[in-house]
Amino acid sequence: MTELFADATAVRRISISEPADGATVTTFIGEVQPGWDIGGNANGGYLLAIAGRAMADAVGRPPLTLTAHYLRPAGSGPCEVVVTTVRSGRRFATATASLVMSDGDERHLTMQLVGTFGEQSVGGPSHVSEQPVEIPAYDDCEFPPAANEGPRPAIQERLAVRIFPGDEGFRTGAPTGEARIRGWFAFADHAPIDAIGLLLVADAFPPAVFNTQLPIGWAPTVELTVHIRGVPAPGPLRCSFRSRFVHDGLLDEDGEIWDSAGVLVAQSRQLALVPRPAS
Amino acid sequence: MTELFADATAVRRISISEPADGATVTTFIGEVQPGWDIGGNANGGYLLAIAGRAMADAVGRPPLTLTAHYLRPAGSGPCEVVVTTVRSGRRFATATASLVMSDGDERHLTMQLVGTFGEQSVGGPSHVSEQPVEIPAYDDCEFPPAANEGPRPAIQERLAVRIFPGDEGFRTGAPTGEARIRGWFAFADHAPIDAIGLLLVADAFPPAVFNTQLPIGWAPTVELTVHIRGVPAPGPLRCSFRSRFVHDGLLDEDGEIWDSAGVLVAQSRQLALVPRPAS
Repeated sequence: MTELFADATAVRRISISEPADGATVTTFIGEVQPGWDIGGNANGGYLLAIAGRAMADAVGRPPLTLTAHYLRPAGSGPCEVVVTTVRSGRRFATATASLVMSDGDERHLTMQLVGTFGEQSVGGPSHVSEQPVEIPAYDDCEFPPAANEGPRPAIQERLAVRIFPGDEGFRTGAPTGEARIRGWFAFADHAPIDAIGLLLVADAFPPAVFNTQLPIGWAPTVELTVHIRGVPAPGPLRCSFRSRFVHDGLLDEDGEIWDSAGVLVAQSRQLALVPRPAS
Repeated sequence: MTELFADATAVRRISISEPADGATVTTFIGEVQPGWDIGGNANGGYLLAIAGRAMADAVGRPPLTLTAHYLRPAGSGPCEVVVTTVRSGRRFATATASLVMSDGDERHLTMQLVGTFGEQSVGGPSHVSEQPVEIPAYDDCEFPPAANEGPRPAIQERLAVRIFPGDEGFRTGAPTGEARIRGWFAFADHAPIDAIGLLLVADAFPPAVFNTQLPIGWAPTVELTVHIRGVPAPGPLRCSFRSRFVHDGLLDEDGEIWDSAGVLVAQSRQLALVPRPAS
């Protein structure tokens, strides 16, 4: 097992300080690696996983709910994640973070985050009104297509995503007309999927609006929130992504991610710009 | 028109500085007023509106997507909102903020936020797959009930919320069994509802899980994200709140808010602790 994802999101702690107000500032360095991108822009879930790993390390707990605002596209190269732990309580810790990329002497703020971290194992009453999305068996689903002519996005070479037959119809000019994409998520190297991996899953599928009459192209994420609702049992994850409200140049996309035991392990929602046609 | 809500969420800018990295720090003071609470704890949407107003003032644009993490319950009293503008671009500005309350000499970090701000008026293609929630006419709906015996929550005196007949059944021991609450939102003084008002609306209804077998009591919000999707046309707003996944001591609650013209003007999602029975 090569654990490509763990390597590609690795961060190293380089300093820690306690400036004021009880907050702790922990600085990490990492590397936005090539190969986790769509046409040269690092995938938003991949960036979220790098920052989320640094934040989880700083507070010593796994992510429970994490929000990122994307301020500019990121190429590959070294990055710095500055984590400010604003509260560390008995059950939860809350931190903010900035992911900064450097371009020579220039520092570019790429992503701004806030998250609450804590263990999932609390227990309590349940009330679940929805079943896992129904999809054909993994091997009966389709490889993710490229958005246009040409190669598949680089990130898909590192994943073993499979798409609900028909939901990849936008590739061949046969979109379903419904802004929905369903399918399976796994890593190409079969690495297990932990809470940090779920942050990637939340943004690993083609935009659901590709199946509508909207232009196909890059849909820049403005904001992405992921709630981690459980630790996945082994095996590929069932995923469903939908956009219900596209207007004023912006779209929502809601994701639901279930594990092999039928448990909802993550919910995501993003606000993104409507794709512009590829030039 | 008394504009109670505008007064109760007013903030005053007291300082501005530019410490480093191009960020601008703007500090505001305000007052968490009594009367916007549930049993002495200030409503989460009300606190979000105070912080959101300060952030919008600092960046000079209305909120587009705002996330708050709630670190401790808030009583009434003076508060300080420290806004750090991390990016101000052509279309959007992004800021973080902390809402701090004081108790004598002690300062308590109450809420930590991140948001992106900008105008809604961009336009672009639309793809809307859902209709506004169907509810009987405003005057045919019910007054919001108290969760238990005793008076209605103080905040409801300042609002003119009406509940879908039946969805208030938890009050009289006849919950619907479905974690859903629908109804109308208006201010009691008929004040117009702007983007800051929508932040309040997102948390102004009784928890949807009151209509299940779960205990009825305070459900502390861990995280609340609101996407502002439009400027409401005049008139009461149609609202629908649902919890679909309750497990491990945590629940989701999704809100959809439509204006009188049938436009989705806000979407909300929160992660909250499952209510503990009132003692």
